[in-house]
Amino acid sequence: MLGIKFTTNKTIKGKLGRAGILNTPHGDIQTPSFVVVGTKATVKAVSPEQVLALGTQVVLANTYHLYLQPGEQILKNSGKLRKFMNWQGPTMTDSGGFQAFSLGVAFGENVSKIAKGEDRRENLTDEDELRKFIQKQSVQKQSALAKIDEEGITFKSHLDGSEHRFTPERSMEIQHNIGADMIFAFDECTSPRAPYEYQKEAMNRTHRWAERSLYHHNKLLSENKEKRALFGIVQGGRFEDLRKESARVISAMDFDGFGIGGSFDKEDMDTVVGWVNDILPEDKPRHLLGIGEPMDLFGGVENGCDLFDCVAPTRMARNGTLYTKQGRININNSQFTNDFTPIEKECGCYACKNYTRAYLAYLFRAKEMFAATLASIHNLYFINHLVKNIRQSILDDDFFNYKNDFIKQYYTIF
Amino acid sequence: MLGIKFTTNKTIKGKLGRAGILNTPHGDIQTPSFVVVGTKATVKAVSPEQVLALGTQVVLANTYHLYLQPGEQILKNSGKLRKFMNWQGPTMTDSGGFQAFSLGVAFGENVSKIAKGEDRRENLTDEDELRKFIQKQSVQKQSALAKIDEEGITFKSHLDGSEHRFTPERSMEIQHNIGADMIFAFDECTSPRAPYEYQKEAMNRTHRWAERSLYHHNKLLSENKEKRALFGIVQGGRFEDLRKESARVISAMDFDGFGIGGSFDKEDMDTVVGWVNDILPEDKPRHLLGIGEPMDLFGGVENGCDLFDCVAPTRMARNGTLYTKQGRININNSQFTNDFTPIEKECGCYACKNYTRAYLAYLFRAKEMFAATLASIHNLYFINHLVKNIRQSILDDDFFNYKNDFIKQYYTIF
Repeated sequence: MLGIKFTTNKTIKGKLGRAGILNTPHGDIQTPSFVVVGTKATVKAVSPEQVLALGTQVVLANTYHLYLQPGEQILKNSGKLRKFMNWQGPTMTDSGGFQAFSLGVAFGENVSKIAKGEDRRENLTDEDELRKFIQKQSVQKQSALAKIDEEGITFKSHLDGSEHRFTPERSMEIQHNIGADMIFAFDECTSPRAPYEYQKEAMNRTHRWAERSLYHHNKLLSENKEKRALFGIVQGGRFEDLRKESARVISAMDFDGFGIGGSFDKEDMDTVVGWVNDILPEDKPRHLLGIGEPMDLFGGVENGCDLFDCVAPTRMARNGTLYTKQGRININNSQFTNDFTPIEKECGCYACKNYTRAYLAYLFRAKEMFAATLASIHNLYFINHLVKNIRQSILDDDFFNYKNDFIKQYYTIF
Repeated sequence: MLGIKFTTNKTIKGKLGRAGILNTPHGDIQTPSFVVVGTKATVKAVSPEQVLALGTQVVLANTYHLYLQPGEQILKNSGKLRKFMNWQGPTMTDSGGFQAFSLGVAFGENVSKIAKGEDRRENLTDEDELRKFIQKQSVQKQSALAKIDEEGITFKSHLDGSEHRFTPERSMEIQHNIGADMIFAFDECTSPRAPYEYQKEAMNRTHRWAERSLYHHNKLLSENKEKRALFGIVQGGRFEDLRKESARVISAMDFDGFGIGGSFDKEDMDTVVGWVNDILPEDKPRHLLGIGEPMDLFGGVENGCDLFDCVAPTRMARNGTLYTKQGRININNSQFTNDFTPIEKECGCYACKNYTRAYLAYLFRAKEMFAATLASIHNLYFINHLVKNIRQSILDDDFFNYKNDFIKQYYTIF
């Protein structure tokens, strides 16, 4: 009843990284793989056929957003997520916790730090509107939005201020109703700035919630006779003993895969991920939550992660920031208005094969929706193919050469 | 050097209407045909491949908009309109006059009527932002925006207020630089409310501008050795003698096709169009400017028009108004949030084959860009296929049955 099976094809010599295959009920995923984020059951500005054509293997939607709108019952009645959004491949949902927590700060932090923007919202990877909403709130108001207790979290909708409650059991019910192939245990994602004592407290709560998530998930599985895989989430901030303890505790539970929660700074990422993956069982997939910028992917893969999701490629695209092998460009810069070359000369994506930088620069100035479509297509193609090339380099025993060549080029235009 | 050739295959018995083929340098157009509007060198929210897949034969862009942004030189340097926007089929541009005039009212009208919204802006068929801009202006301000004289029109950009001037010669130059297959003579589109004397004055000016447009077009054609067809425009408001005179005068000039300017009320449309098409030569295509709602298409075709352009299908789509054979529905109505049927049960469009009303209703509520994409695809497919069916009914000697059946159903849901 797992629904998924993971096989390693090749490892990076002397490292935790590997190339593998993740079989799911709706198709195989060659790993490492980038998971494209379709927050609200649509990849913004791009059709499912376009998403597929640019090499996407799996799509992740956000439980928090879909729970609030259109609501889990509509997802359930529609025939579940894949059918609702017309995505033919495998799907994932997150637990809903991260976004629910993002709306509140009532968990042991220094409020003045938060006011200065020094909190985990710097790493926020959910939606634009949510960010804008949060930015508009005063710290006092933020504190009032989400409250955590042993049973779960009470929060207010960013759409209408109505009060809601997530518990591990509710998260499982909602995610089963949404109906993705791979779902996540309900966890608490702490701030990387949270002190040791709070990280420990939150981690232990996450472990208790993991057990409850797993128990309720199995109950729903046997009731509904469906295939659905549950990933447990490792937390523990940037503290070695906590991360290792969390990896051991979560590994010991019968999860189908694992997520690594992102409560660390980017400079600590490789180290933290390494601690965790050294402990997690080799025969199950590992998902690095909310990470997916080009430079981060190399570290994540090298240190043993198989799956990555991140809204950066599509969000940046909508603002006109585009990946190239030489680094990022902002298509809104005036130099591009008369540039009749593609975004990237040797890119095989639909946008680069058919349109010029001048056209895209113009579409952004004219505020045409097709600008977001073309830019998103390019960035997703770029990331998907970067991860595909990383995978190939592992299979070819050439990972470090590929990595070094990529890094050498990537900053040349800055 | 015309670039186009029109052949009639069949006529509606006892009527001016006909089914034909219009050969262009970039493909044949089976007429009657709906011309999809891509105002700013993009059909809003839809890719060119999607536009093609839903049965579109030809795309029209607006000279006024492209002249202001990105500017004709960028269009020219890009390899012209088709290449710039990646549309493989035939293209048209309008003369730029209509939008330039829309920004000013300095041509002999009763200002108080305009303030009450009784002017030709009711029929305005250009872009949302332009409409909003105009609505925001006071009547005094509007008067200051556009000024007409014998040589041309001086107007202010709705983007930044900068002053610009169109003459017949400049319109030809700009349209040649944009580079569509079929372009229009520079004309003055009057208000249907304008008095007889003003209509006559404007019509005569339009005739002089038609001569100048034709002369300059031919000069540019011979200089640039390109294929490009020029359509002359018949004006004259809703006055029989003026319309007939205009049809005779414009017919006598060596245009490749004809446009019929829309300065009439919708209830006068069939009559006015009949007067004109009775005079226009049978062997050249006739384009009814700015008209394309389902009920209007039957009258336009019956009375001898071959081409129709209109922003209504895409603009309404972006607001959630969708065509069905039973009439228009507004997908934002609450009844659709739990409706898991397609927009239209027997529709063959991409949106209807793959998505439910519930999904679309949700996307509109969630303000997701893909809502506009799916709705535009449906409405354009609907209109394209309606015109295609009208054409087939002419070929089958069945036009009036088809028309009556359509009309009987079309209002059932109101």
